[in-house]
Amino acid sequence: MKKILAIDAGGTKLTCAVINENGEIISDVEKYSTPKNIDDLIKLFKEIINKYEDNIDMTAFATAGAVNIDNTKVDSSTPNMPKGYNQLDFTSLSKKRVFVENDANCAAWAEYKIGAAKGEKNTITITLGTGVGGGFIVDGKLLRGKSGRAGEVGSIKINSKGRVCTCGRKDCFESYASGTGLKMTAEEVAQSDEVFTKSIFNSKNPKDITTYDIIEGVNKNDEYSKKVFNIWKEDLIKGLVSITNIFDTESIIISGGMGKFINTDEIETIVNNETVVSPVKIKLAKAGNYSGMIGAALLACQK
Amino acid sequence: MKKILAIDAGGTKLTCAVINENGEIISDVEKYSTPKNIDDLIKLFKEIINKYEDNIDMTAFATAGAVNIDNTKVDSSTPNMPKGYNQLDFTSLSKKRVFVENDANCAAWAEYKIGAAKGEKNTITITLGTGVGGGFIVDGKLLRGKSGRAGEVGSIKINSKGRVCTCGRKDCFESYASGTGLKMTAEEVAQSDEVFTKSIFNSKNPKDITTYDIIEGVNKNDEYSKKVFNIWKEDLIKGLVSITNIFDTESIIISGGMGKFINTDEIETIVNNETVVSPVKIKLAKAGNYSGMIGAALLACQK
Repeated sequence: MKKILAIDAGGTKLTCAVINENGEIISDVEKYSTPKNIDDLIKLFKEIINKYEDNIDMTAFATAGAVNIDNTKVDSSTPNMPKGYNQLDFTSLSKKRVFVENDANCAAWAEYKIGAAKGEKNTITITLGTGVGGGFIVDGKLLRGKSGRAGEVGSIKINSKGRVCTCGRKDCFESYASGTGLKMTAEEVAQSDEVFTKSIFNSKNPKDITTYDIIEGVNKNDEYSKKVFNIWKEDLIKGLVSITNIFDTESIIISGGMGKFINTDEIETIVNNETVVSPVKIKLAKAGNYSGMIGAALLACQK
Repeated sequence: MKKILAIDAGGTKLTCAVINENGEIISDVEKYSTPKNIDDLIKLFKEIINKYEDNIDMTAFATAGAVNIDNTKVDSSTPNMPKGYNQLDFTSLSKKRVFVENDANCAAWAEYKIGAAKGEKNTITITLGTGVGGGFIVDGKLLRGKSGRAGEVGSIKINSKGRVCTCGRKDCFESYASGTGLKMTAEEVAQSDEVFTKSIFNSKNPKDITTYDIIEGVNKNDEYSKKVFNIWKEDLIKGLVSITNIFDTESIIISGGMGKFINTDEIETIVNNETVVSPVKIKLAKAGNYSGMIGAALLACQK
């Protein structure tokens, strides 16, 4: 059975492990902070690969950023990764085969192969974290588009409120349905709605209200927090309705830190009332914290 | 070479012709009004098929409505077709093979095979008419979803203005970017913006302003008409940006009656500034008025 060295390279953390063809982790998981400059990052990649290279068949990267159609390079410069990251030819890092794929795509593949969407040939995984990412499986294949950049669901337009996204554009799904989006909604409601005056957080500067404050407030029945959370949920639903109507998918899998705050049954019912295609299932991710590495390894085997 | 009897069954018009494997129309094109009740419609289908059946290899329908995954039935009842249309098993209409596909999907296939997107394996055709329809080609295959209903791009959410769509839901792309949407925008601006008082249409009841009025007004440099048209265009662009970001497609082909009013080069430039994937081409449809029939025939050959 093939063994794949999988490396998940995120903006802050970098993890690696050896994974087999079944998606099972068969080594310790090593964790690093992602180096802030490109030379240090390349050095770390090489150290990791040198350590494992003799005992593996190939290396698979799950990375932040848009990966080219050949799965060898990061095409765009991602603000979260060191400058020059898009110059790196990943195949130069090892004597053996190297495969690179976007981390959200890898997570979606892991959910499809061994996770919550196992066996569902049309499925979408949406990652709700600091941002919003997505991986789309169409008829058992990863949607990659003409250049490998498909699946940028965080950048679809869902509102006309004029909110400015971190990308500089307006009304992106990500700017509403992410953790950052919830915080922005919290700040807006605090500044414009008198419901805030009676809130348990009313002594706080609206800018300092966190995602966790809002969740705590919802649990304590705080009207302000419930209002903020409901707006966030409505915005999330708009995005889910849009992609369901386009893809007529079997399931949407929710991963990422914000996933634990939603009731998927409730969201599923609302989404299915709002769509014109046949009903979709909405479920939490199951492939675990290492779904990026697992998906990368399984995709590398596939190719 | 195979010969296919193609029938395009729309809400008001029904056309048919014999088409060959190359997508060439090799008979006269017959035109009918679509009968208002299901028995008359089935009778007409049978009359047409009887007339051609001995000289063709199969029959291909392009139809309004969502077609099932087996391409044999219309799954949902479409308000534009006679009651009971979704009960009809199309394969019962002929001794030979029968194939059914949604008309927007057929039009997209025709653009991909012989039209403006020829050879582009990732392409989307958007039909801007009374409503908004779409057909998505992913890696050379028609996107059909789990049940055949994929591609309902008219129902994606693009705004938070609260406009009620003909489907009863709010803020659907179709309710803004269709001809009906332009008329609704015209009415809203007339009722809320004083730019209307100086318009060449200011003596008209806002409800009676037509799509053609607005286009005429734009050509005559009428400020009100230009404002209305620009809002319509911005809403159209929001939808195009969303689908480009998800599909990273080579091209978007615009078909339907509203297509002739837009400058595709201008729209392409704006869309490419607003997306995070690699640039998309935006072009007008080329496969002609019979693209539904042609696409149905070519898809039937394919399957």
